[in-house]
Amino acid sequence: MAEALDQAEAFARIRLLRSPNIGPVSYAQLLMRFGSAAQALAALPELGSRGGRAYRAAPSETIEREIDAVRSAGAKYLFHDQPGYPALLGQLDSAPPILTWRGDLALASQPCVAMVGARNASAAAVKLARDFAAALAEAGFTVVSGLARGIDGAAHEGALNSSAGPRTVGVIASGIDIAYPPQHAALQERIASEGLLLAEQPPGTEPRGSHFPSRNRIIAGLAAGTLVVEAAVRSGSLITARLAGEAGREVMAIPGSPLDPRSHGGNHLIREGAVLVQSPEEVIELLSGFDGIPRSTFREPMGQFDSAPEELAEAEPADIAALLTTAPVAVDELIRQSGTSAAAVQLALLELEIAGRLERHAAGRVSLA
Amino acid sequence: MAEALDQAEAFARIRLLRSPNIGPVSYAQLLMRFGSAAQALAALPELGSRGGRAYRAAPSETIEREIDAVRSAGAKYLFHDQPGYPALLGQLDSAPPILTWRGDLALASQPCVAMVGARNASAAAVKLARDFAAALAEAGFTVVSGLARGIDGAAHEGALNSSAGPRTVGVIASGIDIAYPPQHAALQERIASEGLLLAEQPPGTEPRGSHFPSRNRIIAGLAAGTLVVEAAVRSGSLITARLAGEAGREVMAIPGSPLDPRSHGGNHLIREGAVLVQSPEEVIELLSGFDGIPRSTFREPMGQFDSAPEELAEAEPADIAALLTTAPVAVDELIRQSGTSAAAVQLALLELEIAGRLERHAAGRVSLA
Repeated sequence: MAEALDQAEAFARIRLLRSPNIGPVSYAQLLMRFGSAAQALAALPELGSRGGRAYRAAPSETIEREIDAVRSAGAKYLFHDQPGYPALLGQLDSAPPILTWRGDLALASQPCVAMVGARNASAAAVKLARDFAAALAEAGFTVVSGLARGIDGAAHEGALNSSAGPRTVGVIASGIDIAYPPQHAALQERIASEGLLLAEQPPGTEPRGSHFPSRNRIIAGLAAGTLVVEAAVRSGSLITARLAGEAGREVMAIPGSPLDPRSHGGNHLIREGAVLVQSPEEVIELLSGFDGIPRSTFREPMGQFDSAPEELAEAEPADIAALLTTAPVAVDELIRQSGTSAAAVQLALLELEIAGRLERHAAGRVSLA
Repeated sequence: MAEALDQAEAFARIRLLRSPNIGPVSYAQLLMRFGSAAQALAALPELGSRGGRAYRAAPSETIEREIDAVRSAGAKYLFHDQPGYPALLGQLDSAPPILTWRGDLALASQPCVAMVGARNASAAAVKLARDFAAALAEAGFTVVSGLARGIDGAAHEGALNSSAGPRTVGVIASGIDIAYPPQHAALQERIASEGLLLAEQPPGTEPRGSHFPSRNRIIAGLAAGTLVVEAAVRSGSLITARLAGEAGREVMAIPGSPLDPRSHGGNHLIREGAVLVQSPEEVIELLSGFDGIPRSTFREPMGQFDSAPEELAEAEPADIAALLTTAPVAVDELIRQSGTSAAAVQLALLELEIAGRLERHAAGRVSLA
């Protein structure tokens, strides 16, 4: 796609992405199919109604207000095909098509390591996170985290205060103009001015539970590897680790005693193939040699898309919907079962999605909404 | 070999094994070559002198005194080809040809798990070891350890006091009649009367540093898997783990915080392929399914012996000695370099060993003494 993005198309892109039922995958498919966001927007009502219901794109006024808010927050937009867009993040199937950012964008294009962990981390683990982050920053890595209390905050602080300067990226689940958690408002402001602050949600968005896994995929996606410092078994940190594994990145964990439940998540990851690390040097060694083939074996296979010839009959949305249930299924499995082309199935899924009847899950799986 | 062992041959076997420079490997080779210990003893002086020096087998009177001491201690002999000899232990290349024992020999032929760890273990790890051992005993496993302070003692106690009864084997580096460490004299006596006490060294032997690795191979060899509970990087526990790995058994470790140096050994093992375990259930699951192909990848390859045709010329001890240095080398490498048969190289090594000029190392490697 064009590097020079005219203002009308930029506006159309934002409007397309903010329209109902459009996510990163459908956005990318619409852009590919129609050549521009403006043309995709024009086609949306018809596509949406083929799924069975009337469809309205996001109102232009909402987008105008959003753009004003981004400007007021001192933030800028970054589109997925612009030069500053971080290359590793762009490799995700679900790479965010549009980000807003404040600070030093170049930090995200340097070698990144993600550090995540528990909000209620032990004092020892908080110190460990701070020390690891400082050492990693000094070794030339940008430390990416999510600004949460506990491990996240310690990782940011360690990198900000390292002798290598403020090598840290904070990725937030809210809009770029919302501070969350409130205790970290000052830290967030410091990251925005000295490091880099990234947000996928439009300005004004308060963080909701459903935003955190999306945010976590950005943290994992920016980095060659994700390090879990201290995490319980059911925690956002483990979701980030899983997303890193699915994206083919290194998954690392610092072990801990089985007597401390805050260690169980990291220990579990190691049992399942994450690399156990005890020192920043081990992280540096692992990530410096990262060539796209992780030593960590903690990952689920990505949903692979068959590239069947386009000549096959187009599947109707109804046919594909009949194959779906609320249980997620791999798109390639759907393609096999449908007996039609991958492109036809993708289009049918796109139409169902725009109509609000489809939900996309990790690893290329889909279900009825 | 014959199951019915007449008294004269039993005596000859003990005498052969106690003769200078005879170890488990040379003992087995001599028995195979000469058909009986009596005949091997008769051939020893000539074999030994071919290595370059005069040779004297162990005096008969020493063996008579040893047999009396074993009787006085309430112990018995166990030869490697007798029915009660533990099958897994017998699979070792360096299986002890003769053991002395007190207690319930059948315990060693039930599914065994070895538990080892630091003498100066943390209170938390000692409790963990005790709890793991009790749970493993209740699941039908015999807990094997080395009677050291710290983790070893806790493992024995946990198994002794479990509701499943005294399912534990203590393997000592001294003679069967020597209590070591002194603090565990009462524990050792309890294991001998309720569990099983095993010794490879002759009675009267005080434990020496060099005996511990030999003892550790028995601990590892009895068990389908070895669990390291808390261990520093350079420790006997890690030797036991390495021997377990070399023997093709599971190597497991309980992780701990990198901030505690006593965790570094176990964490290192996990990094190198040992299975991280957090609960007795995970040990039980792993070992119950053990079919000879460990899930743990922590192991060095065993030295493999080529089976070259016997017709090749015999290598003279001098030729083989010329290929050796004080740095250990794999026997199969020697065979390749010598250009002669595996059997001839083994004989030459045997002669060098009996002459006191050869040292055998782990994984089938040898060096000049």
